[in-house]
Amino acid sequence: MPRIDLNSDVGESFGRWRLGDDEAVLAVVTSANVACGFHAGDPTTLRRCCELAAAHGVAVGAQVGYPDLAGFGRRFIDVDPTELADAVTYQIGALDAMARAAGTRVSYVKPHGALYHATIDHEGQARAVIDAVRGYDDTFPVLGLPGSLLLRYADDAGLRGVREAFADRGYTGEGRLVPRSQPGALLDDAADVARRVVRLVTEGVVASVDGSDVAVDAESVCLHGDTPGAVEMARAVAAALADAGVELGSFAGRA
Amino acid sequence: MPRIDLNSDVGESFGRWRLGDDEAVLAVVTSANVACGFHAGDPTTLRRCCELAAAHGVAVGAQVGYPDLAGFGRRFIDVDPTELADAVTYQIGALDAMARAAGTRVSYVKPHGALYHATIDHEGQARAVIDAVRGYDDTFPVLGLPGSLLLRYADDAGLRGVREAFADRGYTGEGRLVPRSQPGALLDDAADVARRVVRLVTEGVVASVDGSDVAVDAESVCLHGDTPGAVEMARAVAAALADAGVELGSFAGRA
Amino acid sequence: MPRIDLNSDVGESFGRWRLGDDEAVLAVVTSANVACGFHAGDPTTLRRCCELAAAHGVAVGAQVGYPDLAGFGRRFIDVDPTELADAVTYQIGALDAMARAAGTRVSYVKPHGALYHATIDHEGQARAVIDAVRGYDDTFPVLGLPGSLLLRYADDAGLRGVREAFADRGYTGEGRLVPRSQPGALLDDAADVARRVVRLVTEGVVASVDGSDVAVDAESVCLHGDTPGAVEMARAVAAALADAGVELGSFAGRA
Amino acid sequence: MPRIDLNSDVGESFGRWRLGDDEAVLAVVTSANVACGFHAGDPTTLRRCCELAAAHGVAVGAQVGYPDLAGFGRRFIDVDPTELADAVTYQIGALDAMARAAGTRVSYVKPHGALYHATIDHEGQARAVIDAVRGYDDTFPVLGLPGSLLLRYADDAGLRGVREAFADRGYTGEGRLVPRSQPGALLDDAADVARRVVRLVTEGVVASVDGSDVAVDAESVCLHGDTPGAVEMARAVAAALADAGVELGSFAGRA
Repeated sequence: MPRIDLNSDVGESFGRWRLGDDEAVLAVVTSANVACGFHAGDPTTLRRCCELAAAHGVAVGAQVGYPDLAGFGRRFIDVDPTELADAVTYQIGALDAMARAAGTRVSYVKPHGALYHATIDHEGQARAVIDAVRGYDDTFPVLGLPGSLLLRYADDAGLRGVREAFADRGYTGEGRLVPRSQPGALLDDAADVARRVVRLVTEGVVASVDGSDVAVDAESVCLHGDTPGAVEMARAVAAALADAGVELGSFAGRA
Repeated sequence: MPRIDLNSDVGESFGRWRLGDDEAVLAVVTSANVACGFHAGDPTTLRRCCELAAAHGVAVGAQVGYPDLAGFGRRFIDVDPTELADAVTYQIGALDAMARAAGTRVSYVKPHGALYHATIDHEGQARAVIDAVRGYDDTFPVLGLPGSLLLRYADDAGLRGVREAFADRGYTGEGRLVPRSQPGALLDDAADVARRVVRLVTEGVVASVDGSDVAVDAESVCLHGDTPGAVEMARAVAAALADAGVELGSFAGRA
Repeated sequence: MPRIDLNSDVGESFGRWRLGDDEAVLAVVTSANVACGFHAGDPTTLRRCCELAAAHGVAVGAQVGYPDLAGFGRRFIDVDPTELADAVTYQIGALDAMARAAGTRVSYVKPHGALYHATIDHEGQARAVIDAVRGYDDTFPVLGLPGSLLLRYADDAGLRGVREAFADRGYTGEGRLVPRSQPGALLDDAADVARRVVRLVTEGVVASVDGSDVAVDAESVCLHGDTPGAVEMARAVAAALADAGVELGSFAGRA
Repeated sequence: MPRIDLNSDVGESFGRWRLGDDEAVLAVVTSANVACGFHAGDPTTLRRCCELAAAHGVAVGAQVGYPDLAGFGRRFIDVDPTELADAVTYQIGALDAMARAAGTRVSYVKPHGALYHATIDHEGQARAVIDAVRGYDDTFPVLGLPGSLLLRYADDAGLRGVREAFADRGYTGEGRLVPRSQPGALLDDAADVARRVVRLVTEGVVASVDGSDVAVDAESVCLHGDTPGAVEMARAVAAALADAGVELGSFAGRA
């Protein structure tokens, strides 16, 4: 029976400001990338989000980011690797405490936003994230982009690197994400996206923007959850996978 | 052989800004109240401070504070108790991660600044701190002022409350601290302070501002470390205690 | 022809987080209490909000608050009055620069959230706000609660204090706001609220919770704008006032 | 009579954390690059710093920076140019309000730290700073590195660009700064530095690291002030210039 993990970003509210529908998302996904307070997520938001994850049997991941509330962690910051490693450690520990208060634990790590992008090819920052994860708990998987330095360094360090695909993103004929500035980068038809994810999981391919099928090897599929349409899409994907006989489950040990 | 703990605030630098001489202080005290990033202390400062504590065999306590870098945690903030408990949990977990990265662990909690003062008589905030500590690790002692709600609620919750005295503060005839606005509140003669601490530890009394001896029952003595003179005073106190045959050691299990 | 000002809080988004529908609100009100970045409002949000205000001929007020993004300025902070005055000056100047970039200027000041409440009866903080306004521009009116220290000190300082009423709040028989914890504190029927505001403006009275009419003397009426229902209510109030022949216009000179 | 401006960074304390000796520095320099709260400088620090500047007849410049207290503005942040322009406008306005409260006004702008470096060759960020300055006050000079995009765009926009030299930095034979990673980058002999500055002002040359004299054309010389040695060096430079008959005075109109 084929099996896949669905992951999504949650815990991104901050104080008075609400973002996303965590409860709806956590009813669908199997892995929750929970913000850690540096780019989003106040402590109470994080604890409540972890409680929802625990109630739904969803694995809690630490979605570590740059210290940049104003930029939502979406702006590259040239942080010194030593300081970045310490900032990542701090965030994992903080979220793990909120998870414990909610009756669960952090069980994996995924970088957020501009840090996710930096760790694709920025040696110092990719190593910093891996160093921090290994120092905190070397059984934690690290979720990232296939081909990224992040996953390579995870492997070098003896950590489990988990490859993810993106449900609502177009792929090039070479199996890369179509840049957001180009046509076909973003897909918004829920039924179409659901069909693509089923093929990705059951056949290991997606249709690329040039029409050819391209192999995509992923253990987790990232769904977006911060818009009403995104929640509908997530539900459509989960339903289509269930219809196709795919089992949903987290890659992480603790769920 | 009489025994006492000496505690001091450390880890209070932030980024470019240095405060205190952590290395000098950690060579003297037996318990380190390490800031947790909300009122002071960036992640790298905290990790390095924990490394120094580990190297000196000093117990690491989480000095939790209000989220107020601009005010250094010294301004009362009317935080909702639920949010405060979550903020305290977050801070303990964050510092514990930095401590782990430094080869040690957090082993007790002490509120900082205005939160320390609030937990003397603010029911909601005192309970919030205790709830957070108990939820994180119910073996952690809580360090506080004798007679405070904080220590009473610690006792109610089955936590160990540790009473502290202040080396450089005057006491009233009733055994309370002389308010900072009044004469005799602050003592600055290192030799005099050292003699007072020896009496406090060996006889259980201090000379009050009205001349009478007053009983002060404390398991730990707080020393200040953020000025050059304070470090000298701390050294004088530790030396005088050693001369008097007093053993120095943390109240916390892990040192 | 009777005349009244309608004011509402705007500019309360922050980075990725959206709050309220500034465009809809600014199409209705005559005075915009624009956040200044300390409790809400990043610089780009503030500049765009001021552009909308300018386009609608709405007066821009500096809604100064505590430095507390996590608490949205709704938690009392025991800020030293000198530091508070400086923080208020800083905020007014910052918003005035954004207003200039948008082709308008700040023309009045209103404290936000917990600072608004503090300035009702906290002498030091009320004086700090007044000192800052007077120092920046002594022609600026200050918008506040009738009977507050803020308005009294404004008067003492030769500033114009502008009394405001609240459209969606119940009043006691003594003309005070019904505390939020009691029945009748909040009104949610738009048509009823609109009728009440018309009476307030044309007759100078509102029906109190005990059934009696009570005199309320106000130059401005505060409308809330951060929910869809609130925008509808604001429109209903403005329409009812127009039907009653009331002219809408800001109390501030520049509109 | 030759004339030069001496500029230095001040106002870089934050809350409990002190940095630099503003009073000593402001007794020497003629232009004060005052932090604006984003990378350093709380409102009270800024107001007091402006008071000292006013008392010494020193011109106040807005030293605008990235929003990064933890990094002291020394880490590049990939801020969107529109948001950066708004952030710069916000900072200028905020500091100008503190200057007014201190009896003076902002009269020029200089980017700080990583933003200073970014505006040497980052088109979007250099233009953003210039757009903000022009929008706020198009009579403000902009202080920057000779050859930088910042000064070129200032010229394009009709702003006055002011070239600065660095007293304690080595120059290459091409008239560029020796990179900090290379020998000769930093000079620490106060007497030597003073002699170099006198030659720079009176002859328009400095001795480069390869021994040749190289032409350096500057209207202002930057002195560092955040260490005791730096203050001594600043005094030595000012004294040597006076001995050489050089008049010290700000390039900015208001002093």
